[in-house]
Amino acid sequence: MIKSFSLRTPKRTCLIDITGDVADAVRDLGVADGTVTVYTPHTTAAVTINESADPDVARDIDLTLRKLIPHAGDYRHTEGNSDAHIKSSLLGCSETVLISDGKLVLGTWQGVFFCEFDGPRMRKVFVASSG
Amino acid sequence: MIKSFSLRTPKRTCLIDITGDVADAVRDLGVADGTVTVYTPHTTAAVTINESADPDVARDIDLTLRKLIPHAGDYRHTEGNSDAHIKSSLLGCSETVLISDGKLVLGTWQGVFFCEFDGPRMRKVFVASSG
Amino acid sequence: MIKSFSLRTPKRTCLIDITGDVADAVRDLGVADGTVTVYTPHTTAAVTINESADPDVARDIDLTLRKLIPHAGDYRHTEGNSDAHIKSSLLGCSETVLISDGKLVLGTWQGVFFCEFDGPRMRKVFVASSG
Repeated sequence: MIKSFSLRTPKRTCLIDITGDVADAVRDLGVADGTVTVYTPHTTAAVTINESADPDVARDIDLTLRKLIPHAGDYRHTEGNSDAHIKSSLLGCSETVLISDGKLVLGTWQGVFFCEFDGPRMRKVFVASSG
Repeated sequence: MIKSFSLRTPKRTCLIDITGDVADAVRDLGVADGTVTVYTPHTTAAVTINESADPDVARDIDLTLRKLIPHAGDYRHTEGNSDAHIKSSLLGCSETVLISDGKLVLGTWQGVFFCEFDGPRMRKVFVASSG
Repeated sequence: MIKSFSLRTPKRTCLIDITGDVADAVRDLGVADGTVTVYTPHTTAAVTINESADPDVARDIDLTLRKLIPHAGDYRHTEGNSDAHIKSSLLGCSETVLISDGKLVLGTWQGVFFCEFDGPRMRKVFVASSG
């Protein structure tokens, strides 16, 4: 009921389009109709759905989050990545994707993104059927 | 497994109570017990659950988001709606609603809202059963 | 299909680790494989997943949200808790948790947290199976 894939993120913060990997996992799960959860088991990363046509949208999301939640700040957690933890809770570590006839039901401009806030690293994503 | 409805949003940014439309879709889906996903296929809008009794709560959410994520800013995406994309990822394009005996299980003050961040427009909402 | 538990929050804003309560509810529901929704029916609280090892992470999330969304501000809602409503929509009133062999599938550092933004109060959390 759960498939997983890994990805290597190239820098400290960025959004990476994982729509194709999610579609592959849905096919491997054999889900025809219903919903799946795209979930990352990390606390300094997130999953979001947004525009995949123009990569500047992902850049604007990343840059604006970096302004709102600065990397250096008055934080107590001593690992230097409190900003990443906060962004993870703001965007959330999972998204629900609708499935119809084995295909992702996304809007014309929507793609699924892995959000790296404390890279570069190897990261994991789970895709789970709900039923 | 998926029902949809449309709505016309009246201005650039606003929150619109869609609890009744969601309840109608759940009835049409015939979901008795479980969960449904309320999902919007747009990248400049969101779905949230918050207080429906006092409309000033929705206005405060909208106004505060407009202060946090200004419409005009240092954005790369050239369509002039980067703020809307960013708010969409912050609030998220879907919510899960619990269903019991065919009815939405919401708290006393909770309603389901469509969040318009780049209107006015015609918009679509999907309601999907999970099972 | 729905189990609930209550908790008493100790102050106006704080994050409380409820991973153990969620695990108990999953056992009571008898969910072996799939997903559950952890849902709070309140409009001034939220549910999030983040690091449970170092309690300073939860404190940094709470303190940063208090700076971003001040308690006193130019709000219209007259109950003095608009900040709490806004934070509730930003973090969201539910999270999806993956279940395998009856156990929560969480990352090494992940825990499930109840986020209090308008306490101290008695609060309720629902855990619902999706199927």
